[in-house]
Order: sequence, then C-alpha cells, then structure tokens
Amino acid sequence: MHHFEKIQEIIQNAITGENFTEEPRALYEPISYSLNTGGKRLRPALLLMAVDLYSSDIESFVLPALGIEIFHNFTLVHDDIMDNASLRRNQPTVHAKWDTNTAILSGDAMFIKAYEYILKYEGRKAHAIYRIFNRSAMRVCEGQQYDMNFETSSDVTEKEYLHMIELKTAELIACSLKIGALIGGSDDEEADQLFEFGKNLGMAFQLQDDYLDSFGDEQAFGKNIGGDILADKKTYLLIKAYEKADARDREKLDQLIGNKNIDSQSKIMQVLDIYYRLGIERITAQKAEQYFNDALEILDNLSKTNEEKRPLTELAHSMMKRKK
Amino acid sequence: MHHFEKIQEIIQNAITGENFTEEPRALYEPISYSLNTGGKRLRPALLLMAVDLYSSDIESFVLPALGIEIFHNFTLVHDDIMDNASLRRNQPTVHAKWDTNTAILSGDAMFIKAYEYILKYEGRKAHAIYRIFNRSAMRVCEGQQYDMNFETSSDVTEKEYLHMIELKTAELIACSLKIGALIGGSDDEEADQLFEFGKNLGMAFQLQDDYLDSFGDEQAFGKNIGGDILADKKTYLLIKAYEKADARDREKLDQLIGNKNIDSQSKIMQVLDIYYRLGIERITAQKAEQYFNDALEILDNLSKTNEEKRPLTELAHSMMKRKK
Repeated sequence: MHHFEKIQEIIQNAITGENFTEEPRALYEPISYSLNTGGKRLRPALLLMAVDLYSSDIESFVLPALGIEIFHNFTLVHDDIMDNASLRRNQPTVHAKWDTNTAILSGDAMFIKAYEYILKYEGRKAHAIYRIFNRSAMRVCEGQQYDMNFETSSDVTEKEYLHMIELKTAELIACSLKIGALIGGSDDEEADQLFEFGKNLGMAFQLQDDYLDSFGDEQAFGKNIGGDILADKKTYLLIKAYEKADARDREKLDQLIGNKNIDSQSKIMQVLDIYYRLGIERITAQKAEQYFNDALEILDNLSKTNEEKRPLTELAHSMMKRKK
Repeated sequence: MHHFEKIQEIIQNAITGENFTEEPRALYEPISYSLNTGGKRLRPALLLMAVDLYSSDIESFVLPALGIEIFHNFTLVHDDIMDNASLRRNQPTVHAKWDTNTAILSGDAMFIKAYEYILKYEGRKAHAIYRIFNRSAMRVCEGQQYDMNFETSSDVTEKEYLHMIELKTAELIACSLKIGALIGGSDDEEADQLFEFGKNLGMAFQLQDDYLDSFGDEQAFGKNIGGDILADKKTYLLIKAYEKADARDREKLDQLIGNKNIDSQSKIMQVLDIYYRLGIERITAQKAEQYFNDALEILDNLSKTNEEKRPLTELAHSMMKRKK
C-alpha cells in the first residue's frame, strides 16, 4: 500500500508533467498558476488510496484523479471571486493577480479541463463514474449557494449548517473515495461504504477547521486566529453560541457580529470569551470527534486488513491534525 | 424528415418539461430563467436534424441535445458578466436581474447541468461524443478569451478575427452537427463532413451578424443598427476598413473608434460613411457568401438525397436571413 506522502509525490509529478501551455496564454496561465500554488492534493490522494485498496496499479489512474484536483481548484477560483478574497495559500488569488473576467473564464476552462481528465478514465463503470462526479459537482455548487445565502440570513440552524458543509466540503471528499474504489474494482456496496467514510471524515474535517480558526494554536494552524469571527462567518461555533446564549449573551453577540467599528483584536477576544463561557469549544470538538469516530468505524467495517487500510487511517488522523 | 419548426417545438416541450425546481432556489431559478428567455434553439435543432439524417428516432435524443442548449446558455450568462451587458433577448441578463455572484455560480451550475444532459446519451460512441463536446467547450472558451484580448489590441488581423469566430461561434454549431450525426449512426467521415458544413455555416452566420449590425434593415434585424460601432467592437468590418483605409481614413477611424465623446448617431454615420466608401459592405457580404457557399457545397457532397437534406438546407438559408 502506498502512503500519503508517496501518493502526493506521484500526483505532484503528474501536475508538473501537465503544462497547460496552450494558447491563448491569458486563458491557460491562470490554470497553471492555480494548480501550482500548493495544496495538499487531498482529494486526488484519497481517490488513489481507494484505488490502492482494490488494485495494484494506481499510476494508470493519476490523470483522472487529477481531474478531481482541477475541479477543486476551479471551485476555489470562483469562490474567491464571490468571497472577494485576495489571498489563498498566502498567494494572490487569480482574480486579484489578473482580474475578475480572467478568473471567471479561466475558472470555466479549469472546469472543462477537470472533465477532460475525468474522461481519460475509460475502464469499467466509466459512465457511472462520470455521473457520480457530475452529481457531486452539482452538490458542491449547491453548498456554495447555501453558504452565500447564510451571509444574509440571521437564523441559520445547526441542521442547515451541517447540510451546507456536507455539500460544500464533505461531498467531494466522499466522491473522490467512491470513484477511486470503483476504479480499483470494488463492488458498489464497498464503494458506498467508502463514500460514507469520506462524508463523515469531510464533516469532521470542516468542523475541525471551524474549531481551529477560533481555538487553534496560531503556530500549528499556520494562520491567524479569529478570521471567521472577524468576517462574521456563520460557523458551527457561532450557530451553537446563539443556541446556547441567554438573553444577555445574545444581545452581546448581536452587537459584535456584523459590527465593523470595533477593534479587531477586541472583537475576537469578546466573541471568544462568549464561546468559552458557553462551552462552544467542547461542543464543537465533540461534534467533530463524533463524525471522526463514525468515519473510523465505517472504515473498520470495510472488509480489508488493518494493514491495507493503514494509509487511509493515518491520513484521516493527519487531516484532524492529530498524531495517530 | 422533420423541419426546423417541428424540431423547435420538440425541444421547447422538452425544456418546459424540465423544471429546474431543485433547492436552493437561488441557484436553480436563474437556470430556469435563462433557458426560458427564448432563443431559436439553433444548436440542439441542428443536432437533432443531423440525427434525423441517419435515424428515424429523434425524440430519444432530445435530452442530450438540450445539453448543448444549456451549455450555450451558460456561455451567454458568463459572457454577459464579462461584457457588462444588461440586456439579452430584450430581457435583463442574469447578473443584472440578480447579481454577479449569482450569475457566476448559476452559470457554473448550468455548465454541470449541460454535462448531466449530455451524459444521458449512453449509446454507441458515447465516450467519443463526450470528448468531442468537451473539446468544443474548451474551444468556445478560447474564442471568448481571444475576443476579450481583442478589446485591448489595436492591430487585430483578419486571420486572427476569423480564428476567433471559428472558436467562439462556429465550433459549437459544427460540434452539434457532428454529435448528432454520430448519435444517428453515421460513420466518422460523414460526421466530419457535417462538422465542416457546420463550421462554414457558423462562420457565414457570424459574418452575416456583423454585416447586419451595420448594414441591416432595423425592422428586419430586430435591433438597432450600429451597436458594434458604438461599442468599438473589433468586427470583420472594422478590421477590413483599417486594412483598406488610406492615411486620411485611418486617422479618421482612429479619432472615431474608442471615442466616447461623440454623439452616437454622428459616430455611427461617420463610420458607416467610411465603410461604404471603402466597399466594406460588399467585401463582408462576399466573405459571408463564400463561407455559406462552401457550407452548401459540403452538404451537397453528403451522400443523402436532396429531400433528406432539405430541412438542413432550409435552416441554413434562414440563418442567413434569406428566403430559399
């Protein structure tokens, strides 16, 4: 079985081999830029690790796996326009480096490229795989739409939030694993099990991300704490805080959220103070833990040896920023 | 054989049957809106007419044909953002009616829907057909990029312009016919002939569109004359005018093009005056005619009876706004 680092290397070599040097340059250059600003290559790696469970040949399927990475990067390019974000992985976003029109059109071209790479897979169940990818792509868009809707909504429920991250984050992780399993030769039932593993892992991953943004160690997290608070993002933390708050805390949250006239550090500290007081740290950690444990349990039940499943188990733990 | 009007009706019924009523509404409503603001349904009609040449069953392939129409509408939604256009078919564009973010994301969703509909075709050569569509989709994007590049370029050549419209306009028309032929059961050679027919027809169609924007009958054309001139668009007319102009006319064109301080009607009249003087009307009409005749010749050489080819011949003539 190949470990994450080895698979990352295989994927990175494949990306380096694909140059996107076609004309017109204004269309293809941002694609190359976007694909080369780093990222952990998590989704194609999960796809190939699922292939690896059922087939000794993973190298043949690197290009279809790359399709998932290109699709993921396409969503980032368009999301960054919509979120007006100027930095991604510490580099200027495509629309910031070029302009919005370039980011729209190069994003579209990346999306087409994603399909081009997925279509490089012509093996068994190819048609089913295209449909699975297509359906997941639509769900990711639906998730992004819900996320945008939340910006102007003041009463997002926990259920609505969990549904949103299931679509926006967990779906593509789940889909990558399912497609990998089918490519490798698993039966439909096992592919569905891997989908469920991925969905729960994706939920845990996103909740962990929300958690770390407020409660993380800046050094280890690699970015400033409190970004979500400053951006007034409707995260799991904020939704649970409103749910648990008494009238006084609710009033305080109302004063803080959406308020651009408070000093940033003071805003972060005051919101964090409420979070700690209401036990939001513990509640969020428990929720993430619950999804993570569900994910591991599903993986446990998969009819493969622990040795075969070890790379996936290790990656799952590392996604949660924990040592196994 | 089915005539254009009958096929339009079949397509329209299919569109009416597809409601796009999924959630979230903010994502799906603009899709429904965009698909229901009219349009001649030219591309799916050409696809089905090509099917009709080789198969007695066209109704089974309406949904894949709809994929081409959805893709075409997706390009319009995103192009309208990039061109900052507020009206399309006399209705507000998606980004004008909603906002830019909605138009970006709903456009993306339309693109996914387009693939979803194309993937409904699972018959012979399905995989080849997906690839043909994918490749054409990329070429349409390349065409749009060249068109955007031209906005800031002062020395676009005739060759560059023709290459741009071949990608942006002719490619999808050609691709629709080729896919239709393959679905119907033609051999590859005949499918390629229909592609070439479509490419030449598309070139003629776009040049005719350029022509009518300056030299058309407002009543018959259905929109105001001179829109391209006012928008300083690098059309075939303007490129040929620069090519034919002497120093004095060139200077005059330089003063007029890009100048936003002249009265609109006066600008249109002065540019038209130069066009007429330099014979641009005749040159453009001849160029369109040349592509149109090439298209008809290719269709003539197709091993089908004139009776079988009549619907395509008639549609080709009507696209050039001419009576057969």
